[in-house]
Amino acid sequence: MNKQFEKKELKKKSENLSDWYTDVILKATIADYAPVKGCMVIRPYGYALWESVQEALNRMMRTAGIENAYFPLFIPMSLLEKEKEHVAGFSPELAVVTIGGGEKLKDPLVVRPTSETVMYDMYAKWVHSWRDLPVLINQWNNVVRWEKRTYLFLRTTEFLWQEGHTAHETEKEAMEMVMQALDWYRQVYEDYFAMPVVMGRKSESEKFAGAKTTFSVEALMPDGKALQGGTSHNLGQNFSKSFEISFQSREGTSEFVWQTSFGFSTRSLGGLFLTHGDDSGLVLPPKIASIQAVIIPIFKNEQDNEQLIAYCGEVRDALVGQGIRTRLDDRDSQSVGRKFNEWEVKGVPVRLEIGRKEMEDRSVTMARRDTGEKIVVERKEMLPRIEKVLEDIQTSLFAKARKHLIDNTRDATSFGEFEEIMKTTRGFIRAFWCEEDSCEAAIKEATKAATRCLPLDAENETGACVHCGKSATHRWLFGQSY
Amino acid sequence: MNKQFEKKELKKKSENLSDWYTDVILKATIADYAPVKGCMVIRPYGYALWESVQEALNRMMRTAGIENAYFPLFIPMSLLEKEKEHVAGFSPELAVVTIGGGEKLKDPLVVRPTSETVMYDMYAKWVHSWRDLPVLINQWNNVVRWEKRTYLFLRTTEFLWQEGHTAHETEKEAMEMVMQALDWYRQVYEDYFAMPVVMGRKSESEKFAGAKTTFSVEALMPDGKALQGGTSHNLGQNFSKSFEISFQSREGTSEFVWQTSFGFSTRSLGGLFLTHGDDSGLVLPPKIASIQAVIIPIFKNEQDNEQLIAYCGEVRDALVGQGIRTRLDDRDSQSVGRKFNEWEVKGVPVRLEIGRKEMEDRSVTMARRDTGEKIVVERKEMLPRIEKVLEDIQTSLFAKARKHLIDNTRDATSFGEFEEIMKTTRGFIRAFWCEEDSCEAAIKEATKAATRCLPLDAENETGACVHCGKSATHRWLFGQSY
Repeated sequence: MNKQFEKKELKKKSENLSDWYTDVILKATIADYAPVKGCMVIRPYGYALWESVQEALNRMMRTAGIENAYFPLFIPMSLLEKEKEHVAGFSPELAVVTIGGGEKLKDPLVVRPTSETVMYDMYAKWVHSWRDLPVLINQWNNVVRWEKRTYLFLRTTEFLWQEGHTAHETEKEAMEMVMQALDWYRQVYEDYFAMPVVMGRKSESEKFAGAKTTFSVEALMPDGKALQGGTSHNLGQNFSKSFEISFQSREGTSEFVWQTSFGFSTRSLGGLFLTHGDDSGLVLPPKIASIQAVIIPIFKNEQDNEQLIAYCGEVRDALVGQGIRTRLDDRDSQSVGRKFNEWEVKGVPVRLEIGRKEMEDRSVTMARRDTGEKIVVERKEMLPRIEKVLEDIQTSLFAKARKHLIDNTRDATSFGEFEEIMKTTRGFIRAFWCEEDSCEAAIKEATKAATRCLPLDAENETGACVHCGKSATHRWLFGQSY
Repeated sequence: MNKQFEKKELKKKSENLSDWYTDVILKATIADYAPVKGCMVIRPYGYALWESVQEALNRMMRTAGIENAYFPLFIPMSLLEKEKEHVAGFSPELAVVTIGGGEKLKDPLVVRPTSETVMYDMYAKWVHSWRDLPVLINQWNNVVRWEKRTYLFLRTTEFLWQEGHTAHETEKEAMEMVMQALDWYRQVYEDYFAMPVVMGRKSESEKFAGAKTTFSVEALMPDGKALQGGTSHNLGQNFSKSFEISFQSREGTSEFVWQTSFGFSTRSLGGLFLTHGDDSGLVLPPKIASIQAVIIPIFKNEQDNEQLIAYCGEVRDALVGQGIRTRLDDRDSQSVGRKFNEWEVKGVPVRLEIGRKEMEDRSVTMARRDTGEKIVVERKEMLPRIEKVLEDIQTSLFAKARKHLIDNTRDATSFGEFEEIMKTTRGFIRAFWCEEDSCEAAIKEATKAATRCLPLDAENETGACVHCGKSATHRWLFGQSY
């Protein structure tokens, strides 16, 4: 995977976040621009991260009895139009197939922007009785939402995601699923990506087209902009009424099902890169890194090479045996300096340097990617030490990101203060809001910041809307967004 | 997953294979017709089989250093046209996006029918030196090839597959990869699906559009028709010349890379269902079955139920602990008879019946799906016995399918004999062929049978073409195909 690594000066994160971001993704061979406008290629080193996300989320979803399935890529335009708010929300972003097998299609096919409509048409066929509930289905697939201005991972016309779609007897049960999915997303961010998130409810104007209520996890990027990290929707009976998904209840009455949907996409990886990287490249948290430790032999003279490679192999086998994802970089086509640079750009958490000295002392030199700190460890202490270091890196990346979130979440009591913050530091603002769409729109017009969510832990309070002064009952979280 | 099981008389495989096939796939909740013409929904019980295939092939590909990645769904029409034979082969089957984000596109986008062109455009960007080789990339995705007449799994407009695409310094190395991939496909069929296959080379008219040589694995269905089970292509330098994928060799000269591509699709599952099923439903080989053993408690009176469920739970835990994929069907909304029927239709290899008698004797009654045979086994002997039974089922399904293949592979020395076989029993025919396209076309016109492949183990012989009598050097394998 490291074959196409390009040695050239990396742009500096500390100077220009956006330039650095694109540059590091390309240089670390995470992804590349595709020959199709608005699309990208996810290269093996980047795709391995997505496979780790799949593994983690599959494991969580399985505990709730959710099973994977596959529904078609194409949705007949006529089907998409069944739920009015839904089609209104998505129609500006659609890619439409009008020719199939050389002929013009009578009913054009939309490339799925999301699968509610095509899935629920089937649910209506499958669900008849309470015995058929709950329906607990997820799919991993590709979706298309046309974008004019795109950005690697964060905004691409095609992206990969999982979309869970469940149907229940009661709204209570549906709501439990909504919150469970939201918490899975929090876990992926906090436990794997080492990124703290705020869980909350979206405002009416920001909710999913067709949902009763939308919840999200929101993360804060280094430039003070927010990233919506995943959404979980209480669909109520909006779709079940449009698609006639009804069932005979335990009491014998005919009822519409209560539904949820929730999605987590490759967009999340953009947040991961932005959050932890530094001027030397990516910094990947050990729990998500596909390579946790890279071993680099320091060749000096030809006689020793064979012995050195043998010792490096022994170290690698010991680490792999302990479940540590390890790569031995024994290429002789690259210099040691270039290898150091390459694996730094790629953000591998721990580098093990092994030269003649280490071989003779039966030790290894361990370098942490996050702090640059180097320590010499005896071979026999290596396994517990490296496990500890990997844990430390994970914890300290999270702590650092958490500090950034806390330091950059500010209360604003006047609109002047609100505007000032958004003009200078940005970040999250906690402020009272009257919950009127028009007021939210005016705030956004003036500051580019909209509501991100009403945090789940927000208290009931009484205050005056930060913009219009009308009475308000909660402090919402505001921010500019990607 | 068994929620939507429908109790209705299943059509008989022994009476009408095609009607049975569709019926059993729907009733076993493997798949369903989608609201989009030519597409289908793969339901959780069917998708789990595909996940097993993914796991098996990923494991094999990893041993050769192949890594997963993701390339875009859309291919600009102009890019697809770069390799002339390739575009000519695929153009009648394309789905074309002409509208994006509400606007008519200047360069229409093709929904990938396969990804050679979009991938190789990137390879040209990534490969510069022999140090960048080999490129070993695979992707799991969805592709679209427009079909007029469709058939669940076997022929659908959209299907899922993996496509491996490698680039090498030498043709020798590329050919090793071609044969390695072909052998992986053989392993999936023979070791997991319990289906024997013939490995061979396709004729010029049947090879992949743009390939130098195509190899395939071919299976024989119960009705005597052949199923192409997976293909592996030596692309030579056809694409590397069109896409200018060149590299500086170890000798310092500029060379074009040698390429391969190989694909295995959800089509294979259609062959699996056709091969082993019987009048009572599917029969799934244990190595691929997502549920290998189902436990059904035989409730008699309410007092015993709790104890019975506890005993069944103990049995389940023991089996799961041994790595046997087990489901305890303790639903009280379904009768025992209906459960038996349902799991039979779904083809679960082993059913464990546990009633009051078994509980008191500390035993289980084990029923084999393939033979219907029932045996009572003591609890303490259960683990080794069930492992043995699962192995026996796997072996005996393969032996039965192998016998069918051998019994239905016939030599034809005259065209009269050839026609007679294709009119009556069908199956594979081994016959001399002159290797002229026109002669192959004439045979197909007269008998609906074309060459399937030249088996890898075919000997060099001298004979007369079964159709035109001209001199021929090999016996080819012929068959009608799905």
